[in-house]
Amino acid sequence: MAQSGGPTVVINASVAGVVQEAGRHPDVIEEIYGGRNGLWGVLGEELVDLQEEKRQTIEALKHCPAAALGTCYYELDLKGRPAEAAKDLERLFAVFEAHRIRYFFYIGGNSSQDATLKIHEEALKRGYEMRVVGIPKAVENDLPHTDHCPGYGSVVKHTAASVMELALDTASLAAETCSCCLIEVTGQNTGWIAAGAVLAKRHPNDGPHVILLPEVTLDEAKFVAKVKATLAACRHCVVVVGEGLRHVNKDGKVEILAEDKTWTDAAGNPMRPGAAERLAELLKRHKVDASIRTVKLGYGQRCAAHFASATDVAEAVACGENAVRAAVNGQSGFMVKIAREQEGPYKASYALHDLRDVANVVRGVPRDWLSEEGMMPNEKFIEYARPLIEGELKLTMEGGLPKYVALDKVPLDKVLPPRA
Amino acid sequence: MAQSGGPTVVINASVAGVVQEAGRHPDVIEEIYGGRNGLWGVLGEELVDLQEEKRQTIEALKHCPAAALGTCYYELDLKGRPAEAAKDLERLFAVFEAHRIRYFFYIGGNSSQDATLKIHEEALKRGYEMRVVGIPKAVENDLPHTDHCPGYGSVVKHTAASVMELALDTASLAAETCSCCLIEVTGQNTGWIAAGAVLAKRHPNDGPHVILLPEVTLDEAKFVAKVKATLAACRHCVVVVGEGLRHVNKDGKVEILAEDKTWTDAAGNPMRPGAAERLAELLKRHKVDASIRTVKLGYGQRCAAHFASATDVAEAVACGENAVRAAVNGQSGFMVKIAREQEGPYKASYALHDLRDVANVVRGVPRDWLSEEGMMPNEKFIEYARPLIEGELKLTMEGGLPKYVALDKVPLDKVLPPRA
Repeated sequence: MAQSGGPTVVINASVAGVVQEAGRHPDVIEEIYGGRNGLWGVLGEELVDLQEEKRQTIEALKHCPAAALGTCYYELDLKGRPAEAAKDLERLFAVFEAHRIRYFFYIGGNSSQDATLKIHEEALKRGYEMRVVGIPKAVENDLPHTDHCPGYGSVVKHTAASVMELALDTASLAAETCSCCLIEVTGQNTGWIAAGAVLAKRHPNDGPHVILLPEVTLDEAKFVAKVKATLAACRHCVVVVGEGLRHVNKDGKVEILAEDKTWTDAAGNPMRPGAAERLAELLKRHKVDASIRTVKLGYGQRCAAHFASATDVAEAVACGENAVRAAVNGQSGFMVKIAREQEGPYKASYALHDLRDVANVVRGVPRDWLSEEGMMPNEKFIEYARPLIEGELKLTMEGGLPKYVALDKVPLDKVLPPRA
Repeated sequence: MAQSGGPTVVINASVAGVVQEAGRHPDVIEEIYGGRNGLWGVLGEELVDLQEEKRQTIEALKHCPAAALGTCYYELDLKGRPAEAAKDLERLFAVFEAHRIRYFFYIGGNSSQDATLKIHEEALKRGYEMRVVGIPKAVENDLPHTDHCPGYGSVVKHTAASVMELALDTASLAAETCSCCLIEVTGQNTGWIAAGAVLAKRHPNDGPHVILLPEVTLDEAKFVAKVKATLAACRHCVVVVGEGLRHVNKDGKVEILAEDKTWTDAAGNPMRPGAAERLAELLKRHKVDASIRTVKLGYGQRCAAHFASATDVAEAVACGENAVRAAVNGQSGFMVKIAREQEGPYKASYALHDLRDVANVVRGVPRDWLSEEGMMPNEKFIEYARPLIEGELKLTMEGGLPKYVALDKVPLDKVLPPRA
């Protein structure tokens, strides 16, 4: 197995699930290898023997942030560079063959699942007996067909707690002047994480008061009016904005707000001030009477294992286990997906979905999960997201800080010549 | 009592300490009032009756972020605007007299303790019998004479955990390219918070690899060389930088890096890109061969009650209690300070310090608590900081998020004409 793309709080929990489940099938799975740094490391024949790790290390991986095996953003880009991609696939199968690898599990998001699909198809083409199963991972929650993605519940839990705390902070500052705080969150081109901040709101006057998602193009006038109305009513206003928020630029085209080229540095290069800062500028231009602050939660969100969702961790483990079970049962070319029991209290179940429907497809927040004006998720979204953040981990602590484990990463001997 | 300046995770714990201790002296303290939004609210006769609050609400304040009574940045600026300040003091004492206020506790940092001192001196001048005691509060840890400030332990605990998690994330990204992460932390003109990030480092090759403090003017060449050497050795590098880092500008003057005016927006206004982004620009200019990311932890740090230090909370409560005890014993014109037992395991004790030595004085990290090159705190600092982050809170949770309380804030009837 290998890990790919941006890490999440639970990407290692899926590794633990794979290792533990694989260990339950010693009749068919003799060795359990990890590829270092995703496909990049596999191409370099950088494999480690995960049966050399202590059992308790594997168990502790479930509470450990970042990608324990290392990750990469390397893609098998068959369309863009067919010759190079063919060479990569050639090399990959040389590595698989050299180490008798017959199962391949790739934990990742959209473009990683594209690579998983290509490996599956290549195996079929070559008649190389192999079972290839993708394991979903995306803090952005933008994979299709799965109810949600492992990693999402934890990033929302941490983001909502931070927004709740920042909202209290903002409210307590409204004295001489009104107080406004603009909080930028990650999520790339979808607003799942931004929407999740609504869980911080327990009473109608609590922040966040406005949530802006990339799925709804910014209506400047409505946004400014809503901030002004909130300040008039509450003396403070908390806005959460997804980093990929779109607006209509001066040429009438829809573009990402933070990529607007009108801000330049001294050398004339475009600045990337961030969506929150751009909105602050907008509010100032409209003479909003408040002290305005911006916060960008940034990369800290996706690795905040000190406040992860126990539900998310358990599901990530189960995704890993289900991938192994599917492969042992002869399945290949699928991604594990999470389904939700429709009746009664929240309960997840697991199924498989054809990788061809998953790879490179991005799913946004449905429009009817947002208020009519589009600046606040509604009850449908809340019902969806609330169970995903339930439960806290009991972290092992040492000196007041979490004790995270690292893998020993005992390397396999290389048997191939170095990658050309 | 009232709260002033930027909130901390434990500024409400001190309120709880004051209320609970005041309740133990019913013979001399008949009523317990809170001023809303610090002196700003007191000037407006915005007082609330804290005996109307439930006991469990006061107890739960110990785990609640932001300023529960509200805060302000308003100052009694006797020097700058003597006429206005005299009017403010006149009004304050009218409020005190109207409500028979004979004890005043102000929870705040440097400039708030300046106000506390002025109120004490004005009471003496007027012959108004009053006991005025300051209660320290500063995430920045920059108050003199106290071993450390309530609020500091929690901000360091959260910052160090975040840096540890970001360091693991950064390390796991080093694949096709080396990986470098620049993390900007708060702290204004001192590096106490930045230095605290060293607690995230458990092994020599762990991040953070470089910590830059405002107390040590940036040596560009040494900094770039250290990053390059770290990347060569570890393939990743984590840098923590205090927001107030100073450098030598083009005119040879020492100024704050993030306030350098050479970055402008499209209209020619100076940009405030932040110290981390400036350092990223510097590394790129020096052709550092790595993928470089920046993170600015920002205001979320000071209100992260979801991961507060139990030691910090207990000490903030004790500071409030000790302030009341001192006042009941007839003391006035002092700030409570924390001392440290010099032998054996860490243990705090409490004493008083003359406000005249505290007001407006800023204390930085001692130079001999840093490595010779000045880019990493040494064992002396670690020994100092480590006990302050010990212990975790058992937060009441609801739906996967902390359940923070709010005060009812039952207002006192106003008896004075509105403030002129």
